[in-house]
Amino acid sequence: MATISDVAKLAGVSVSTVSRIINNKPHVSPRKAALVADAMTKLGYSPLQAARQMRGSGSQTIAVTVPYITNPFFSELVAAIERTADERSYKTVIVQTFGQKSHELNALEFLKTNQVDAVIMCAIENDWDLIKQYSQYGLIGVCNEYVADPDVLMVHADQESGMYAGTKYLLNRGYRKLAFCTGQQDIRFNDNIEDLNSDRYRGYLRALREFDLEPSVEWQFTDVSTIADGQRVLQRIASMKDRPDAVIAGSDQVAAGIIAEAQTLQLKVPQELAVLGFDDQPLSQVVAQPLTTIHQPIHEIGDAIANMVADELEGDTIDTRQVIMPLSVVVRQSVA
Amino acid sequence: MATISDVAKLAGVSVSTVSRIINNKPHVSPRKAALVADAMTKLGYSPLQAARQMRGSGSQTIAVTVPYITNPFFSELVAAIERTADERSYKTVIVQTFGQKSHELNALEFLKTNQVDAVIMCAIENDWDLIKQYSQYGLIGVCNEYVADPDVLMVHADQESGMYAGTKYLLNRGYRKLAFCTGQQDIRFNDNIEDLNSDRYRGYLRALREFDLEPSVEWQFTDVSTIADGQRVLQRIASMKDRPDAVIAGSDQVAAGIIAEAQTLQLKVPQELAVLGFDDQPLSQVVAQPLTTIHQPIHEIGDAIANMVADELEGDTIDTRQVIMPLSVVVRQSVA
Repeated sequence: MATISDVAKLAGVSVSTVSRIINNKPHVSPRKAALVADAMTKLGYSPLQAARQMRGSGSQTIAVTVPYITNPFFSELVAAIERTADERSYKTVIVQTFGQKSHELNALEFLKTNQVDAVIMCAIENDWDLIKQYSQYGLIGVCNEYVADPDVLMVHADQESGMYAGTKYLLNRGYRKLAFCTGQQDIRFNDNIEDLNSDRYRGYLRALREFDLEPSVEWQFTDVSTIADGQRVLQRIASMKDRPDAVIAGSDQVAAGIIAEAQTLQLKVPQELAVLGFDDQPLSQVVAQPLTTIHQPIHEIGDAIANMVADELEGDTIDTRQVIMPLSVVVRQSVA
Repeated sequence: MATISDVAKLAGVSVSTVSRIINNKPHVSPRKAALVADAMTKLGYSPLQAARQMRGSGSQTIAVTVPYITNPFFSELVAAIERTADERSYKTVIVQTFGQKSHELNALEFLKTNQVDAVIMCAIENDWDLIKQYSQYGLIGVCNEYVADPDVLMVHADQESGMYAGTKYLLNRGYRKLAFCTGQQDIRFNDNIEDLNSDRYRGYLRALREFDLEPSVEWQFTDVSTIADGQRVLQRIASMKDRPDAVIAGSDQVAAGIIAEAQTLQLKVPQELAVLGFDDQPLSQVVAQPLTTIHQPIHEIGDAIANMVADELEGDTIDTRQVIMPLSVVVRQSVA
């Protein structure tokens, strides 16, 4: 069956214009209205049928996918989504993917079986082309992570600028030997990829290069995301002959593990090693050296995507399909 | 429709005996077999029909309810349940109740609509009599919390003995003025209630009374469950003329908040105030004074209930329907 995106493409207008026409909203030029009407006829697109399909079984349920619910960033994000969904009278079910493609597809299959009306993805494991096929069965929204697709409802933070600002902050404080931690398996980086990890790495590189620095391979830590991972990172750093003077932890969890292990090994934070967190979770205030970290507007992100998805499920016109929120450095005590 | 419990009751045997007979397992006396067959006829109970109903739509999905997914105890518990359910080829969806009766009923309604085959409840908001009615639509298991019902699949820790051991540890270390924190709205306590909070309070009282002590009303803190709540508890303690010398935080989250705020107000832990955590989360090792706390076997609890529920869904005989696991004190640095 044709989708609203197909209609928009054939008519040569935006999805939001098609949506405005279907919902009889003002401010649509007669020329565009004619193009859309024509495209709808050609494609056999029926707004009513599409709406019924979009609303699924009327399960009034939204599934939210996260990699690991034990990561507080994701549990807070899900809680924010669910609070707003609840206000809008939608039930929420949370699906963990454990970072596995097959588990993510399980959640998307819930659309097909009408167990849910919409899926909000907080991370993305499969190729977008595959995921997108499920939009014929229901609505898919994306938050935190992002993809290059102008039709999809999407809310995320400006990861490139956030990591740039954090790295720049360390450089401006005099640090030059900056270690970098990431939760991903490998540092995938090329200029054509638009995703959270690539953008963060891009921000890190941009700041380094302003100071004529290049990243040191020895100080890049991959597949690092828990407190225990942070403890292991610090052990590796402590054993190095040439140690970094600061570490960009990639998450508050990892930063907390690094600081706890530094305390155990009597390595002084921030005097011997500065630690920069990411997320600004409640945890960041209870570690031995409260974290200087990058604040993510978790509640605003969750609230925005839940409202956008509920609006679309209810047939409202959505003028802004993609929202990007700023990140900021929060200064506490883990950087001198 | 009659349930397996109805058959057991009418026949005057245990549910597990009925289950053994239905599944043609050995070690059933001919007399009991006759009683069960009789009861099944009288009630019009069909094991095949019951099995089909028990398995729901074959959604192969289990819902897990938790009060707040942002509480790491629950996110770890859910993760443990889900890992085992996944090994047994069940999908898992997580439902937050926010401690609300209506949200818990939403999850139970998923049984009625065949969206899930079973619900595992990690907390209980509604009266058990109401919840139990949903067992006609599918399987209900309980973990962490518990109820006085011998038929239900249930795995929990021995909260009374755990809190007794923790309180006793403080008393043996010389502390006498013991504050007590709980996540519940009020301290409900009477000898007839069997639940997690009553049992914890019972353990606390038992230890106090061995030292001829009674709890001080002023040092009881209710509705306390987050890091921010812990910070507020410490502020209240700091402003008291007659301060407790130790605080039983009820969770590692609250303990972390108390310790962070004590650091801010320059009140020394454990010299001026000892802090006892509960749960033994990863968090307990990264706070400024690593937590002396009570270890909960979260992974064992989650693993056990998931296996028991999967066994029952698959028609296996379950000999032990209720499992109680021990708690133990882990000594670190927040108690002198």
